[in-house]
Amino acid sequence: MSNDCGTSRIAGCQFTLHPMTDKFVDVILGALEEVDTTNVWKDTDDVSTCIRGKMVHIFDVTKAIFLHAAKTGEHVAMSGTFSIGCPGDSSGDVYMDVTDEVLNEVKSKDISQKAGCKFALYPMGREDYMDKIYEQIDLSKARGVDVSASHYATRLDGEVNDIFHTLEESFDKVQEKVSHVTMTFTISANSPSTKK
Amino acid sequence: MSNDCGTSRIAGCQFTLHPMTDKFVDVILGALEEVDTTNVWKDTDDVSTCIRGKMVHIFDVTKAIFLHAAKTGEHVAMSGTFSIGCPGDSSGDVYMDVTDEVLNEVKSKDISQKAGCKFALYPMGREDYMDKIYEQIDLSKARGVDVSASHYATRLDGEVNDIFHTLEESFDKVQEKVSHVTMTFTISANSPSTKK
Repeated sequence: MSNDCGTSRIAGCQFTLHPMTDKFVDVILGALEEVDTTNVWKDTDDVSTCIRGKMVHIFDVTKAIFLHAAKTGEHVAMSGTFSIGCPGDSSGDVYMDVTDEVLNEVKSKDISQKAGCKFALYPMGREDYMDKIYEQIDLSKARGVDVSASHYATRLDGEVNDIFHTLEESFDKVQEKVSHVTMTFTISANSPSTKK
Repeated sequence: MSNDCGTSRIAGCQFTLHPMTDKFVDVILGALEEVDTTNVWKDTDDVSTCIRGKMVHIFDVTKAIFLHAAKTGEHVAMSGTFSIGCPGDSSGDVYMDVTDEVLNEVKSKDISQKAGCKFALYPMGREDYMDKIYEQIDLSKARGVDVSASHYATRLDGEVNDIFHTLEESFDKVQEKVSHVTMTFTISANSPSTKK
């Protein structure tokens, strides 16, 4: 990162984790048990989970939850929206007084898991938002992932670790230039459609 | 609607439907069988489904797919992003030469199904985007739904038909004033958490 915006501003992610199996509760609780969420504020209800804190921890935690759910071999999908710098945001419910040291990378990096992901970046409050997207994101240099275009989104295919690296890098580059940025994503693993 | 923007501009929705059951394929295919998608362009892959066309049909089809999946009684969630007026959009893959007559409302309106939903509106390319959101949306008048605030989103609880009515009305009001608008949503029904 070329500046510290990403570690000094409140980031968050509102996401859902959906294992397509009768054992969905076990898969979700099992994944949460494996993930250290000490460094983020977390709130879960029947619709979604919201985590808030430093950007590095938001990505570390979402990636780890998806990886630990997907490694069960079940068809699992996660959808959500990352956000940073929302002017309507409250100062509460944040864990900003923590170190930048990520707590889940050691376990995450050894999990090999293929997935497909679609994402879209939304730099807010800028008339030149399309330029900001094109300027900042050079996905031709994305390592380890196949990049393709889709209506309303960009598709990434590859290892989950590489996909999240690309998501975080893209989000980070835009938030350095634009104060309020959101990014939607849907990631899916072990789909019977891809096994055909 | 006070103008015809919503029927003359290309709208779309990129969404996922996730039944949390071993029979997820049957639930998805069963729902699709009940829904008439004649009036929208549709493309499905292993990550998500994209539909494109007139705004009225985009909402008619997404609501119907969710309702027919949820009425099975399984825990079902749908997440996605509605979009209209994207300047990077292509003119292909659209069905704009159709009537405004919705094809699924007759079957949809009689399905009683409770759900919880979180949504967020993103008017693009406007410095005054927060004002546009507050100006246009008066959720205190939303009929049949409970409205509550959540980080990064607004929560709606009630009948699926009323929830989608509120979503469509909110989106429609903002897109009348702002050319490019996106709206994220996650809707969940039959969660074991709500049954407690």
